[in-house]
Amino acid sequence: MPVVEKWGTMDLAFCGRSDGNPFMDYNIIGTFSGGNPKETKRAEGFYDGNGVYRIRFMPSSQGIYHYEIEGSFMSEKTDRNMLQGDFEVSSAGADNHGPVRVYEETHLLYEDGTPYYSMGTTCYAWTHQKMELQEQTLDTLEHSPFNKIRFCIFPKFYDYNRKEPLTYPFVRGNGEGQDPELIELEKQNLFLFPGQIAPEWDRDFDYTRPNTEHFQRLDLRIRQLRDLGIEADIILMHPYDRWGMNTIGKDAIDSYLRYCVARFSAYRNVWWSLANEYDLIKTRTVEDWDHYGELIQSTDPYDHLRSVHNCMPFYDYTKPWVTHCSMQRQDFYKTTEDTDLHMKTYCKPVVWDEIAYEGNIQLGWGNITAQELVRRFWEAFMRGGHAGHGETFLDPEEILWWSHGGPLKGESAPRIQFLLDILKDTPGKYVKKTGSMFDCVNCVPSYIEKEDIPFNIMSADYEIDYFGIMQPAFREIMLAEDKQFRVEIIDTWNMTIEDAGIHSGFTRISMPGNQYMALRIIRVNNSREVLS
Amino acid sequence: MPVVEKWGTMDLAFCGRSDGNPFMDYNIIGTFSGGNPKETKRAEGFYDGNGVYRIRFMPSSQGIYHYEIEGSFMSEKTDRNMLQGDFEVSSAGADNHGPVRVYEETHLLYEDGTPYYSMGTTCYAWTHQKMELQEQTLDTLEHSPFNKIRFCIFPKFYDYNRKEPLTYPFVRGNGEGQDPELIELEKQNLFLFPGQIAPEWDRDFDYTRPNTEHFQRLDLRIRQLRDLGIEADIILMHPYDRWGMNTIGKDAIDSYLRYCVARFSAYRNVWWSLANEYDLIKTRTVEDWDHYGELIQSTDPYDHLRSVHNCMPFYDYTKPWVTHCSMQRQDFYKTTEDTDLHMKTYCKPVVWDEIAYEGNIQLGWGNITAQELVRRFWEAFMRGGHAGHGETFLDPEEILWWSHGGPLKGESAPRIQFLLDILKDTPGKYVKKTGSMFDCVNCVPSYIEKEDIPFNIMSADYEIDYFGIMQPAFREIMLAEDKQFRVEIIDTWNMTIEDAGIHSGFTRISMPGNQYMALRIIRVNNSREVLS
Repeated sequence: MPVVEKWGTMDLAFCGRSDGNPFMDYNIIGTFSGGNPKETKRAEGFYDGNGVYRIRFMPSSQGIYHYEIEGSFMSEKTDRNMLQGDFEVSSAGADNHGPVRVYEETHLLYEDGTPYYSMGTTCYAWTHQKMELQEQTLDTLEHSPFNKIRFCIFPKFYDYNRKEPLTYPFVRGNGEGQDPELIELEKQNLFLFPGQIAPEWDRDFDYTRPNTEHFQRLDLRIRQLRDLGIEADIILMHPYDRWGMNTIGKDAIDSYLRYCVARFSAYRNVWWSLANEYDLIKTRTVEDWDHYGELIQSTDPYDHLRSVHNCMPFYDYTKPWVTHCSMQRQDFYKTTEDTDLHMKTYCKPVVWDEIAYEGNIQLGWGNITAQELVRRFWEAFMRGGHAGHGETFLDPEEILWWSHGGPLKGESAPRIQFLLDILKDTPGKYVKKTGSMFDCVNCVPSYIEKEDIPFNIMSADYEIDYFGIMQPAFREIMLAEDKQFRVEIIDTWNMTIEDAGIHSGFTRISMPGNQYMALRIIRVNNSREVLS
Repeated sequence: MPVVEKWGTMDLAFCGRSDGNPFMDYNIIGTFSGGNPKETKRAEGFYDGNGVYRIRFMPSSQGIYHYEIEGSFMSEKTDRNMLQGDFEVSSAGADNHGPVRVYEETHLLYEDGTPYYSMGTTCYAWTHQKMELQEQTLDTLEHSPFNKIRFCIFPKFYDYNRKEPLTYPFVRGNGEGQDPELIELEKQNLFLFPGQIAPEWDRDFDYTRPNTEHFQRLDLRIRQLRDLGIEADIILMHPYDRWGMNTIGKDAIDSYLRYCVARFSAYRNVWWSLANEYDLIKTRTVEDWDHYGELIQSTDPYDHLRSVHNCMPFYDYTKPWVTHCSMQRQDFYKTTEDTDLHMKTYCKPVVWDEIAYEGNIQLGWGNITAQELVRRFWEAFMRGGHAGHGETFLDPEEILWWSHGGPLKGESAPRIQFLLDILKDTPGKYVKKTGSMFDCVNCVPSYIEKEDIPFNIMSADYEIDYFGIMQPAFREIMLAEDKQFRVEIIDTWNMTIEDAGIHSGFTRISMPGNQYMALRIIRVNNSREVLS
């Protein structure tokens, strides 16, 4: 009997009809049932070219499962003996914590209960680069702190992105599936910079026929990310287009979305990002985005995280189909400092997917320092939110991590790893802001209730206080008189943790007078630790 | 005939009654008339102790003036021959530009038309320190960029300010003039820090009798500041009190304010700041502040600038008696970036009097870097506003510039001088934000109209673009095709200006990829300059 691990992917292939347009004309549906506790799921399959149909399933239980396949895809080539069968689901492997889920309304958690602090990064077009570069990107990711990556299914046309992609998402054709009414709108939306010449549009595709080579490579990359413990935040549409992707008509775009769901949803690390900068896509309306979101919500059997990412106005993240806020900063100066405000407003997890990138290119979204990017990360996580990295350093070959992947050149990644390590060291399921002092951000583990923190007493049983750009030479803290606390001085930039001793009551802590410092205050419960 | 310069101070002294309480019981009023164009002003005088009454006058014209003195102050010691007379007003000296006035609703300008960019600093209690330290402060100021200083008439009780002042503003007594109902309110308002012990209150003063030694020294300091070209932003009340200053009753406080107006208003460099952090003074209401402001407005013959400074909520600066916004940042992260927003809201000049200080003390308002303080200055001035400096470095003798004066230890002052020099080099009466690009702040001289600046063409005839924390390695700018512009790269931190050549049309400017850079773009009108 075939064996697949819990939250792994069962992948079944069947021969079937290849006449007509198999992407549109025929369907394949599977019913999967079993495990303990028992679950039953229906999942759509997809056409993978050359007469092959596939259907994939991600079990959430362990034990014996049974499947049954139906649909109009069948031909004389279909092996009817394979249309039903059994398989076994084993326990999850050591690094398999299941999909990331919303937890206690405003937080994220792996399905197995392991805390998830989303250290994102952004390589919008990495899967469209030549293969060696893609391999190098994976190697970089393996040695990085990042556990989520945002990337696009469609190729990207923008500054530093003027080359053709490795493959196109659709096969060549004559504009089948396109809505001619959208063409004029889209033409006004070409992202050129001063001094750049508009290229010819390329719309000779059949938008009703996915290019299976393109999607098979995406399969591979999503699986490789999964095996590295990295969430794949898949961007389904985006504004930076010269291949007609934003002129696809209603039926064909729905078909494309169903194809993505059928193809990718059985990978546990998938997140759905309907769009990057939805508001810059002039051919789609808010009604369209809601429709796309609801379509994915109703067809994805595993209820993966779903959101849509803004350029200027935030989306209305209160919409029921939206699972979390996927935000780009709106203010040029203040970004993740508003994390807790947005958590209150939307009552959903806040994931900052664009807060400007470490780099030195000409534009303000791509030329902040590593210090500032790391500070924005700390500000986000101290408030219970999540943040995303990107890197835009000028390069003689125009390989910028932000879009192409490759090597990292900046200084922020090791500091982001240091932050992740500190968060992982924190007990509880997540951290949350307490906010008892005006001039630093305080966070505590999930299990500490606000009522447990007396006003102006700076410590709960476990607390981190972050000072950002401030550079105090000392700090006075009020600790409970009847308890003992270990105080540590964390240098978030130099990545050091210094033991400042065990204290009670009113305490003055000498600090180095540098920026980007934090204090960690941990109650000492164990008398042996005090003596050691 | 005595001679005084235009906007100088005519100071007349008379002997008179010393029985009873001469501060409260008798008055002295002068009428001053003359000059070309002719002006006539009535001014109250004040009792200066030892039977001496003084009356002061600041002429705004030139030519022959006549004065006449009246009032109940006269006794047999009064020389009746001196009660009227003539004097001559000469032209203003080279560094005398008159008082600072509101200009075109939201800007400041010296009365003689010289631009005024308010480079403020803060030494709250400098006039209460020992004399050598006061002299050292003046010496520091002389070699500094600062052209405004904020300081308090009343002594200060706060962290780092626990010593007694050199003199008290009132003579010893038994609480005359105090409102007993305010005492309980005030007692709750003692500013102590963790670990500090509340001192005894000291309320043994006669709040109806100013201590003339205290006020004579203030006279001297205000004149010395005037001679250094520094505006004296006199703080009339503040919350950090242990001497009963905030328990003074209605009549005595009005009397104190009239005394200050009579005593100081004839100095051209005086600004009235009703309070530092008015909202922390629990014994005064908004109605009180409006009353104080209107009292000063109605008694100050010279209409000096008037405002009131917040801790948390901004005052309603739209009130008619308020001439300008005297602001403390409300947001912990974003300060002067909101300058133009507030100019729009209040339709008055915006003066940021507290935006956190360069230093390393324990509290967030007093431990930012010089880089950040200088950045906040640039953000304020690029938007047509003004900003104030302060310095709070730990000191073995607890001499912190912010309160005590002394030497400067930080790195911001030379950079503030550099900014001032650039502003003074800019043509026009002031600078204003244009705001044509999203990721830098652009300012232009006062005479350039918004309509003159085509969208997305980054240059007017004269423009400065400031990049703040961004670190672009190059910048693309669109200059008019049919004009020539000199482009300069300004490093606001290293204080260098590099000539990047003369350009037209689409231009790529190489930049060093550092923070705190600006571009200055100046249209070349003179063909000789192009050739040189």
